[in-house]
Amino acid sequence: MTANPLRDTEDRRLPRIAGPCGLVIFGVTGDLARKKLLPAVYDLANRGLLPAGFSLIGYGRRDWTKEEFEEEVLSSVRDRARTPWRDSVWDQLAAGIQFVKGDFVTDGAFDDLAAMTRRMDAERGTSGNWAYYLSVPPQYFSDVCNQLERSGLADSTDGWRRVVIEKPFGHDEESAHELNKTVNAVFPETSVFRIDHYLGKETVQNILVLRFANQIFEPLFNSRYIDHVQITMAEDLGLGGRAGYYDGIGAARDVMQNHLLQLLALVAMEEPVTFSPDELKAEKLKVLKATSATGPFTQTTARGQYTAGWQGSKFVPGLREEEGFDPDSGTETYAAATFGINSRRWAGVPFHLRTGKRLGRRVTEIALVFKSAPHESFTDGQTQAQGDNALVIRVQPDEGVLLRFGSKVPGSAMDVRDVNMDFSYSEAFTEQSPEAYERLILDALLDEGSLFPTNEEVEESWRILDPVLNHWAESGRPEDYPAGTWGPEGADRMMGRNNRVWRRP
Amino acid sequence: MTANPLRDTEDRRLPRIAGPCGLVIFGVTGDLARKKLLPAVYDLANRGLLPAGFSLIGYGRRDWTKEEFEEEVLSSVRDRARTPWRDSVWDQLAAGIQFVKGDFVTDGAFDDLAAMTRRMDAERGTSGNWAYYLSVPPQYFSDVCNQLERSGLADSTDGWRRVVIEKPFGHDEESAHELNKTVNAVFPETSVFRIDHYLGKETVQNILVLRFANQIFEPLFNSRYIDHVQITMAEDLGLGGRAGYYDGIGAARDVMQNHLLQLLALVAMEEPVTFSPDELKAEKLKVLKATSATGPFTQTTARGQYTAGWQGSKFVPGLREEEGFDPDSGTETYAAATFGINSRRWAGVPFHLRTGKRLGRRVTEIALVFKSAPHESFTDGQTQAQGDNALVIRVQPDEGVLLRFGSKVPGSAMDVRDVNMDFSYSEAFTEQSPEAYERLILDALLDEGSLFPTNEEVEESWRILDPVLNHWAESGRPEDYPAGTWGPEGADRMMGRNNRVWRRP
Repeated sequence: MTANPLRDTEDRRLPRIAGPCGLVIFGVTGDLARKKLLPAVYDLANRGLLPAGFSLIGYGRRDWTKEEFEEEVLSSVRDRARTPWRDSVWDQLAAGIQFVKGDFVTDGAFDDLAAMTRRMDAERGTSGNWAYYLSVPPQYFSDVCNQLERSGLADSTDGWRRVVIEKPFGHDEESAHELNKTVNAVFPETSVFRIDHYLGKETVQNILVLRFANQIFEPLFNSRYIDHVQITMAEDLGLGGRAGYYDGIGAARDVMQNHLLQLLALVAMEEPVTFSPDELKAEKLKVLKATSATGPFTQTTARGQYTAGWQGSKFVPGLREEEGFDPDSGTETYAAATFGINSRRWAGVPFHLRTGKRLGRRVTEIALVFKSAPHESFTDGQTQAQGDNALVIRVQPDEGVLLRFGSKVPGSAMDVRDVNMDFSYSEAFTEQSPEAYERLILDALLDEGSLFPTNEEVEESWRILDPVLNHWAESGRPEDYPAGTWGPEGADRMMGRNNRVWRRP
Repeated sequence: MTANPLRDTEDRRLPRIAGPCGLVIFGVTGDLARKKLLPAVYDLANRGLLPAGFSLIGYGRRDWTKEEFEEEVLSSVRDRARTPWRDSVWDQLAAGIQFVKGDFVTDGAFDDLAAMTRRMDAERGTSGNWAYYLSVPPQYFSDVCNQLERSGLADSTDGWRRVVIEKPFGHDEESAHELNKTVNAVFPETSVFRIDHYLGKETVQNILVLRFANQIFEPLFNSRYIDHVQITMAEDLGLGGRAGYYDGIGAARDVMQNHLLQLLALVAMEEPVTFSPDELKAEKLKVLKATSATGPFTQTTARGQYTAGWQGSKFVPGLREEEGFDPDSGTETYAAATFGINSRRWAGVPFHLRTGKRLGRRVTEIALVFKSAPHESFTDGQTQAQGDNALVIRVQPDEGVLLRFGSKVPGSAMDVRDVNMDFSYSEAFTEQSPEAYERLILDALLDEGSLFPTNEEVEESWRILDPVLNHWAESGRPEDYPAGTWGPEGADRMMGRNNRVWRRP
């Protein structure tokens, strides 16, 4: 590929361009493909990170021609791409775009696909290297994998073959184990890339840099100084239109099992020997193995379902009034639970994880709340109420890091008040953060597996969460909470029992 | 005194109003009185912190009537006061303003002053409580103290009598000891208030709060994590018009002996049992006693004198061209030296102190520079040059706290770059910081001695500095450095020998 104005040859930060390869997207007519995957492919091409002969094959049930699919991709790129439009990039990309019509079970369709990949290998030089992105409901994972095997598409004799899959990876430890068995029967674990798009976010990767490239933080990351950790993923959106996926699944399975437990692993793990994928995953797995949910669950967990309420200036319906949801749905839209890590570093430090829909605002953050200073140095008459120190890693929005500490109030006495020291990613760097999917698709093409949870991690996460889910399954309905609030009362009770409070982010 | 709009009755930060008392200012016609002391007295009155019958007596050689002096005070207050003008405050303050004409040796003048204080005791109810502010050259301290004793003004039988003195407190350990003996022969040490106006600054007081009201910083304040400490007081101004005070004194005696070593004491001292003046001073004294200059001084110190150069867009003269300076003057305008603290906490951590005139810009800060992370976690190809972590306490201008650490550069590789997390005092608090002199005058009237160095601290500071001064006295002229730069080359050499660099603040 010739000189790319978006790619600085001096830029050591982007050392690798994917070698010859192609990408097949199953479920290419879905929302995820249109909103995230197709624009990410264009952005990667635009940044000069895809090989010259890259091929993109869409697979789906629609009756599209190559040209019609090309139009679809174009429209999605025009709508959603992050980087500027460039004709030459599009022309080169479009030359490799193909569409294959088919469902997930028919032999003929997969044979067509196999033929198409061979054609691309010949015409575009994709060299038999193919990644299969399964943007399809999990019940089809097995069918697709089996068809890929049968049709020879999984055969890595003449090039690499990888599979990229999207959550949910099962709904409990047992089903996850079954699913992994199915996938791993066709693709060895090193060829499986499980997408957790949160791990593609810059701030999440920055957790490792903060901890291990600096001297200042790591000495504080342990039970001697940290009182507890809060990991929050709050969304203001409701679940209108997502009933098919969400009803019966709920917040814990949708978010806590994957995103939140992965964040826990990154913030709590020991330093790996190197940051190679294998060693990084070994440390994550180690900390997950040491993690379990802390009981008694009636006191250490909370579960809620939003009811109608005011979200900002808008009155929004409750879950059971949302289209498609069972009017008696018992699915939780808020989940909070307490976890302990049985390690020398973290024993005794509760990790409180929470997630919910229709909460006060959209925010994802990890807050390490420090113990109080060993004693109150400034006598009673002199100090105002002071909170505990906190180091907060903001994942979204406005990615950054914040340190809360006590400072002297100007004036003639020794009065102390909490203030924030702040670092904002977007203010500090002129570099734009790539979209998580850009990063993750490129990593899969590069065989760079650091940011993808392994089968073992997935099963450990379910092992950690299952006792809570089982308890809830036997405990009737979740509590109600009005949309626009910060969750059910039980969430405050679970913190209050140890005189802790949730941060209002 | 009736309700004061500037004083909130709920405000616990200003718990104490000075009791009945008066203040005599010697050298009231000087710059310091006009620019700082008189406006500070008005501001204190305006904030409701002075007693209703407060009396202010000016003492000087001018032939002023009470009315003329009152005009002088008024003009100074109008020009320089921090708080808004209020007629009622001024009227009440002015009613207690008096002037006594005299020099520093004549019995009659001091007898007049004694008579005036007795008259004020009767008319204004100052109750025999008097503070004497000696804003006079140090060679007169002895005369004034002796006259205060002779005339009975120092006699605390019928009320308290205190003396407030300004630096320089001697020019070496021996002279400081002599000066203290002279002053302490008349006033017991608990009645002597030595002004170091830097200690009246909010950020300096905040050092104690940062360290001891928080959990997050103190675990890091020791030789395990800190590589070295830099304490900088840089001024962009030159010395035009200050020859009489400065020539033959120099930067080390003017700034390092007092301000910089006091900052060192506050940042390095152990936590006192309480923050009562006695216990605070005991800890400061303890750390000063453990401090000494580190040699060999040819390599660990640097000394410079500014020559003509560009200060921003203005070409300014060198010291030897400044009015009043000896054209062969060997006085240093830049001084840097290295100190060690022989304590369990700090052994092995160099404290580099520097101060200078005509430097790049005006800034005072304390930087704790951390050791490098124990090893480089991110391999060579992946990381840019990263500096060491630093915690910087900015004293002026723009008081605040800054943390420098490495963060991931947005992009697809693990590249690390230094960023700053920032806290600005003025942005965080709506409360205005009182002027240092307001704070210190009020403290003296309240017998609140925390922020005033004791005779022992002063003598210890000279004991620490004398070996450096003696070395320099035998080492010829200081190096030249052009105005507008960051000091002589020797300053960089002294850091470079251990692969350290001065921060460019």
